[in-house]
Amino acid sequence: MKRTPFRRWPCSIARTVDLLGDWWTPLVLREAFLGTRRFEEMQQRLTIGRTVLSQRLRRLVNEGVLERVKYQDRPERHEYVLTPKGQDLLPILLAMAHWGDTWLAGTCGPPTVLRHERCGRPTHAEVVCAACGEPLLAEEVTTMIGPGFPEHLREQALALPRFQPPRDGTGTP
Amino acid sequence: MKRTPFRRWPCSIARTVDLLGDWWTPLVLREAFLGTRRFEEMQQRLTIGRTVLSQRLRRLVNEGVLERVKYQDRPERHEYVLTPKGQDLLPILLAMAHWGDTWLAGTCGPPTVLRHERCGRPTHAEVVCAACGEPLLAEEVTTMIGPGFPEHLREQALALPRFQPPRDGTGTP
Repeated sequence: MKRTPFRRWPCSIARTVDLLGDWWTPLVLREAFLGTRRFEEMQQRLTIGRTVLSQRLRRLVNEGVLERVKYQDRPERHEYVLTPKGQDLLPILLAMAHWGDTWLAGTCGPPTVLRHERCGRPTHAEVVCAACGEPLLAEEVTTMIGPGFPEHLREQALALPRFQPPRDGTGTP
Repeated sequence: MKRTPFRRWPCSIARTVDLLGDWWTPLVLREAFLGTRRFEEMQQRLTIGRTVLSQRLRRLVNEGVLERVKYQDRPERHEYVLTPKGQDLLPILLAMAHWGDTWLAGTCGPPTVLRHERCGRPTHAEVVCAACGEPLLAEEVTTMIGPGFPEHLREQALALPRFQPPRDGTGTP
């Protein structure tokens, strides 16, 4: 099946989905965060087909999310390490984990729990407003047209209830 | 292509990916958050095939993420509204949006910006520790075996560098 390419859509969710909107890629990344670096190990842990894993790793390397690093010379062997761009995907995975823990764990409770080594406590991801620190609720968030939004699509976008024209630079009322 | 079902994996990321790990579903949800409720409108906005949209909406209704609500009697017409389980997916989408804004926006800047109506300021999603409020960084998060983790998979999981056995209930050191 041919995928619709979202990379050039004027929407950062769509652009991110172009990479993550796949049922293996987020799990390959999960493995990378858990410390799995080698192809064989990833393949065994995920019980993923070799071709599929190769494709996903290649894409992640091409996108600058993973780096392919040589760890042995003869024979030449490589491992996969998260780049800063890749490390920065953790919030998405942790937000997914928290939603799954909340809504899909059933009666047994969550399969895994997180510990924040910095504060020493069990934790989960909380998604908050970068400006005020309060949780971001759907009814309190408005989407506005940003600097990279194409002119010819504005009219259609502005017909949406929660889509607003740009405000002044500071955004303060 | 047959998808590997992740729903029963002992991992809340995998279970969430079983629903969201698709390149249309997150965008159908984006539309729902932006206020699009009707099939025709969604179809036009996303330029998505009717069959594909029907499938995605049906799945989201079956999973309890969207509710199908009748808004007209003759002829009978329905619209799709986020349930609490669906509303709770916003943090994942906002985390995706922020990553896309940071890493994929290019020189034009982000296509859209968010405003938090509660504090009146431009914002983006920040993913923090629910216990201490600090950002969750990859090197400071440890995954531990939780109550719902299957016994027979523990050994394999514990071989991972950042995977730990369960601690006592409070999790305090």
